[in-house]
Amino acid sequence: MGAEIFSVGTELLLGQIVDTNAAYLGRQLARLGIDCFHQTTVGDNAERLAQSLRTALLRSQLIITTGGLGPTEDDVTAAGVAQAFGLELALHEPSAEAIRRLLAARNFPFIPAHLKQAYLPVGAQALPNPVGTAPGFMVENAGCVVISLPGPPPEMQPMFEQSVAPYLHKLSGGGTIHSRVLRFMGIGESLIEDKLKDLIAAQSNPTIAPLASHGLVRIRLTAKAADEAEAQDLIAPVEAEIRRRLAEFIIGVDDEDIEVTVGRLLREKKLTLAVAESCTGGLIGHRLTNISGASDYFLAGLVGYSNEAKKALLGVAEKTLADRGAVSREVALEMARGARKSAGADIGLADTGIAGPTGGSEAKPVGLVYGAIATASQEYCEEFRFRGERDLIKWQASGAALNLLRRALEGYLPEIAI
Amino acid sequence: MGAEIFSVGTELLLGQIVDTNAAYLGRQLARLGIDCFHQTTVGDNAERLAQSLRTALLRSQLIITTGGLGPTEDDVTAAGVAQAFGLELALHEPSAEAIRRLLAARNFPFIPAHLKQAYLPVGAQALPNPVGTAPGFMVENAGCVVISLPGPPPEMQPMFEQSVAPYLHKLSGGGTIHSRVLRFMGIGESLIEDKLKDLIAAQSNPTIAPLASHGLVRIRLTAKAADEAEAQDLIAPVEAEIRRRLAEFIIGVDDEDIEVTVGRLLREKKLTLAVAESCTGGLIGHRLTNISGASDYFLAGLVGYSNEAKKALLGVAEKTLADRGAVSREVALEMARGARKSAGADIGLADTGIAGPTGGSEAKPVGLVYGAIATASQEYCEEFRFRGERDLIKWQASGAALNLLRRALEGYLPEIAI
Repeated sequence: MGAEIFSVGTELLLGQIVDTNAAYLGRQLARLGIDCFHQTTVGDNAERLAQSLRTALLRSQLIITTGGLGPTEDDVTAAGVAQAFGLELALHEPSAEAIRRLLAARNFPFIPAHLKQAYLPVGAQALPNPVGTAPGFMVENAGCVVISLPGPPPEMQPMFEQSVAPYLHKLSGGGTIHSRVLRFMGIGESLIEDKLKDLIAAQSNPTIAPLASHGLVRIRLTAKAADEAEAQDLIAPVEAEIRRRLAEFIIGVDDEDIEVTVGRLLREKKLTLAVAESCTGGLIGHRLTNISGASDYFLAGLVGYSNEAKKALLGVAEKTLADRGAVSREVALEMARGARKSAGADIGLADTGIAGPTGGSEAKPVGLVYGAIATASQEYCEEFRFRGERDLIKWQASGAALNLLRRALEGYLPEIAI
Repeated sequence: MGAEIFSVGTELLLGQIVDTNAAYLGRQLARLGIDCFHQTTVGDNAERLAQSLRTALLRSQLIITTGGLGPTEDDVTAAGVAQAFGLELALHEPSAEAIRRLLAARNFPFIPAHLKQAYLPVGAQALPNPVGTAPGFMVENAGCVVISLPGPPPEMQPMFEQSVAPYLHKLSGGGTIHSRVLRFMGIGESLIEDKLKDLIAAQSNPTIAPLASHGLVRIRLTAKAADEAEAQDLIAPVEAEIRRRLAEFIIGVDDEDIEVTVGRLLREKKLTLAVAESCTGGLIGHRLTNISGASDYFLAGLVGYSNEAKKALLGVAEKTLADRGAVSREVALEMARGARKSAGADIGLADTGIAGPTGGSEAKPVGLVYGAIATASQEYCEEFRFRGERDLIKWQASGAALNLLRRALEGYLPEIAI
């Protein structure tokens, strides 16, 4: 069975929002072993949607659309799907009732426009929306299925999980594509490929695909098999060999960000952390606290953005700032010590750097960042040079600081044993 | 002239990365007044890419592809484009030379695979890559143009701006679609539509389209005109009328996030800010410091994640924590006061809440957040209730706290005059 994903919305074509739904659905279809070779985006135009759907229905048996189910005039997905199949729209009473109930429960005023969302193609099966007012729906016709889901991810994802995934699992009748991703930091894509070139040349099942972005390299191992366990058995020996060659640079698997790995290591070792940030402005603390349960190890963050704050909050010496400058090894180390001390943590982690676009000089260019780590008895500092826009430099700096901590916790830094 | 955007990459179909390139190119084409009705994503398969390109070339005169230009075996865009046009690939010497030079300048080892990137369809014009090794290229054939750009945004965007935009501007021969987006917080989509229903009913040029996500509602005004000035003249009176009705809720225009507006207001009023964060973990500081020049007004952030840190760093009283709990009006206010004082800032801004998924109770459910603001003589606290996953609650909480500050700075909070 071949599937296609349709994203509906003029705001997508105009680039006013980024489409995360297609990526989510791509992952879900892969997990279910359903091939998806096309994703399409069309605007809020029923005629054009219907035409694109008809083209897609010639080559695929399953189409999932997101977006265009709302109450406003430019929400045209139900009309477009109906038109593609030559069906009329009709009021679906149970959905209308559900909308009235939800609005009453939330004390929202009822506006007639809300009812528009209950008009579905005749014969469609409504999919309940546990979060919002717009129901989804599913229409079968001539061996093809179109499934239409709302655009907002907090509505779309639960609806997919509750109503669509079980249906598709039955429909696809087994077989799976399973991927495992190894994530690397501190090493470039070309060098990884060079170290793995014999494996890449020999690949067939699993396939080995590299992908680099923003200081992170991912290697995706993808196996086709009858079920997930069999796919995992195919992947395991290849993964083991890659780990043997490049263990020091592996920061996590699948969608595990560095903050997940660092959190796990801190919890395992029962250690607490305080962070002192300058150029990242709070991003390291934000990333650490994206992980539920971070309060077990993350005690405090101190963003010393001004020199005054570096002195008052972090105990950086006036003289160090004057002699070495705010972006220096010495200040990074004093910040790490200061954060550790003032929060009473086992470990202090710090960064200071120049995020740009202004503030750089020949000696200290934009992108220069120092990361430092301090324990009660040891400390270590490393220099990094990043390129790119301000947000990218902040992102890479936060990742490098967290990776410094990972390397220390995993025993890869001889200078500091934790 | 109709355009289409192609994103090439199996990692996109599998949902392993989110496609931001299509959104970027959508915005650029709109700015140039070029209609774009289709976006397509295909995997790393030259045959399938060629087939989809041939379909697109039947309905559109301009196709821009991103991705698949790298050095590895699964980078197939040049091959796919060549095949779609019935052309061969050949080594493009100046591009090969540029790759060798760039690698040498960076002290990267030269790997023969790098040269693969210099094989372009015969007759193609190479587009220099100011950032990476992969050149882009442009092929014209039978009145149609395919422009292929690299996938990584830090390479793709400069190449588009330097080489593609000037070319397209000439090609499109004037005419423009201009959009202006008004951004709202603290009011729902339905209520906005209700307040604007006469304007929405009467709309033609500009069109008025609402879009809601994560506590933010955007109203997009889009005008078609001969040039941007004329489009702006069409939009201005409609925008003025919307502002007259809903000024209090407007937090910015176009891609102006709340942190941009808050930064501008603080700079105008020559005020300094310190932030005390609990549930947002550093996200408010991160957002404020995404704006270049934030050091003019943002002095320090203090993330008191544990109760001990709230006491030690922010001066929250033991008794308040015991009597009211960490998530309470009283603690939020003490945090705001503490941050202001310890950093010597004019204003202290604080939040404390429950980001979930654990830690909620019937009295204090997940999503309950207090935002507080303190000056030398006044203070104010507001309660918010958010729904969704942990990251969404953190995001909304950071936005609500920043919006509280905006409302205070713009004079919408009678309790606090700044």
